[in-house]
Amino acid sequence: MNPSKQDVVRRILAGKPLEPREHGVAFAPSNIALCKYWGKRDEELNLPMTSSLSLSLGKLGSSARISASSGIDRYELNGVAVDPQSSFARRTKTFLDLFRPDPGTHFNVVAENTIPTAAGFASSASGFAALTLALDKLFGWNLERRNLSILARLGSGSACRSVYEGFVEWHAGKSPDGMDSFAERLGNKWPELRMGLVVISEAEKAVGSRPAMKQTVETSPLYAAWPSKVVHDLSELKVAIADRDFNRFGRTAESNALAMHATMIAAWPAVLYWLPESVAAMKRVVALRAEGLPLYFTMDAGPNLKLIFLEKDADAVTKAFPAVQIVAPFEP
Amino acid sequence: MNPSKQDVVRRILAGKPLEPREHGVAFAPSNIALCKYWGKRDEELNLPMTSSLSLSLGKLGSSARISASSGIDRYELNGVAVDPQSSFARRTKTFLDLFRPDPGTHFNVVAENTIPTAAGFASSASGFAALTLALDKLFGWNLERRNLSILARLGSGSACRSVYEGFVEWHAGKSPDGMDSFAERLGNKWPELRMGLVVISEAEKAVGSRPAMKQTVETSPLYAAWPSKVVHDLSELKVAIADRDFNRFGRTAESNALAMHATMIAAWPAVLYWLPESVAAMKRVVALRAEGLPLYFTMDAGPNLKLIFLEKDADAVTKAFPAVQIVAPFEP
Repeated sequence: MNPSKQDVVRRILAGKPLEPREHGVAFAPSNIALCKYWGKRDEELNLPMTSSLSLSLGKLGSSARISASSGIDRYELNGVAVDPQSSFARRTKTFLDLFRPDPGTHFNVVAENTIPTAAGFASSASGFAALTLALDKLFGWNLERRNLSILARLGSGSACRSVYEGFVEWHAGKSPDGMDSFAERLGNKWPELRMGLVVISEAEKAVGSRPAMKQTVETSPLYAAWPSKVVHDLSELKVAIADRDFNRFGRTAESNALAMHATMIAAWPAVLYWLPESVAAMKRVVALRAEGLPLYFTMDAGPNLKLIFLEKDADAVTKAFPAVQIVAPFEP
Repeated sequence: MNPSKQDVVRRILAGKPLEPREHGVAFAPSNIALCKYWGKRDEELNLPMTSSLSLSLGKLGSSARISASSGIDRYELNGVAVDPQSSFARRTKTFLDLFRPDPGTHFNVVAENTIPTAAGFASSASGFAALTLALDKLFGWNLERRNLSILARLGSGSACRSVYEGFVEWHAGKSPDGMDSFAERLGNKWPELRMGLVVISEAEKAVGSRPAMKQTVETSPLYAAWPSKVVHDLSELKVAIADRDFNRFGRTAESNALAMHATMIAAWPAVLYWLPESVAAMKRVVALRAEGLPLYFTMDAGPNLKLIFLEKDADAVTKAFPAVQIVAPFEP
């Protein structure tokens, strides 16, 4: 039998304190994959088919304050009590269930997102990462980052990357228990790098990324070619980051995102996250590039674009996308 | 050395008359691929990577009237003299060069398209097929269809399918000279079947299908998975046609078109023929299907949609797409 989430938690928390302190507070950044995570080899443990590489978004992300409470769990998101029937509440409860020292332990969670919720801006990644970091403080586990990354992954795959700042690589790993499937920070910094968030729609997406991945892996004939694309792009991105070769960096990220969407478009039923306005924005980026502006985009499982450019071109980007929200991932 | 187009023509026309008669007149239908031709194994002879399957559009297509003339070639398209520098004139001249009994023979070509030119409605396929059939009459070659199909292919790959009505399969073949790469008519008819042309843009496309195919084959990591998708879809389509299983038929055609576009989207630079309005129309089809209307689409190398439905649903389709042009491929 495959290991369960509970097995993994037991192993990581062996010998760690069981008594909650007063509270734990933490922040975790959103992360945007430059080489995407798309497709699981294990649905239970969120183990990916391939490695991936992301950039954390500095101050944009999620904060979580968690304390022990009696009777029932209570969750608050962005200042509003969360409906216990909502997907957010159910996913949070399932995750917290892994960490209750006894069934009578309940939690009071106050979460804030500084990034739009569930529109392809990776709020679940930063949310589960923040929750994991806050639990570590609540119980005083003092876990090493690698283990925090593994625990966050149990909540949402890409959350394992959000326990770090900067460029982060998630190693796919091979082991059935996923103890080798964790994220690590790359040492490189790139202070001039900018990401621009272009919101096409803030509506929650019609198909969540979990079922969309599953559908792609199971039905898309083109998915077979995805893993070798990832191997190529990971290596390209690392070279581009090390050399600060912006065009190589942007081209690889854009091409990787397009290939991921292509695998979904070839699924049946097709998963088409793009809205008409997404296509218009993509074409605008390509046209600006043809005019000489070094500008690229990436897209996650949603209709929105994340622009990739350098500080020096911020004015030109703002002119072309007046509503863009610019993030400086390496700013202190 | 690989055989040239001229070698193929010489072989097919060996022993055939060399003297043009007064004129040759012919019509060839447009054809819409249900399982697409995407990628060449030989650029010179237009030999495809994979087999494909199409449906001819009855009265929609191209007519050609050709006569011998002296001095220079003269081409007229839709009542207008063609600019000798245009792509149409250059491609037509290159094709006709294959058939001049001596360099002094020139041709007067009067062509009419009953389908929009060069916007993914396969006007070059019907055009080269009509030209081939008209040449056969002009010279009195009386070639068998298979050889006419091979000759038409030398003008434009998918033209080899336009020398037939109804469902047509183009066998990819394996031979370097392409003598086994020809189209054949399937015997099946399906009188209730309808195609609906939805014009998103009549503008000539920014990237022709020839360079787009080349770019996909050379740069798209997902193209590797395309040939096995085609094998699967060809077999599905033949079963669906034989059984008149409409949903299986439509699903396979739509899925095949999406997978073809997906291979292009993963090319670098990406080939994105979709306009924002294409995406809106695709989503409208999917939404109507979710409401119970048996409606599917296919798309070629352009922004336009071809709807696939049955006669009984023509009113519902017209209501949803008021500008649709409905074709009854099997109507006499």
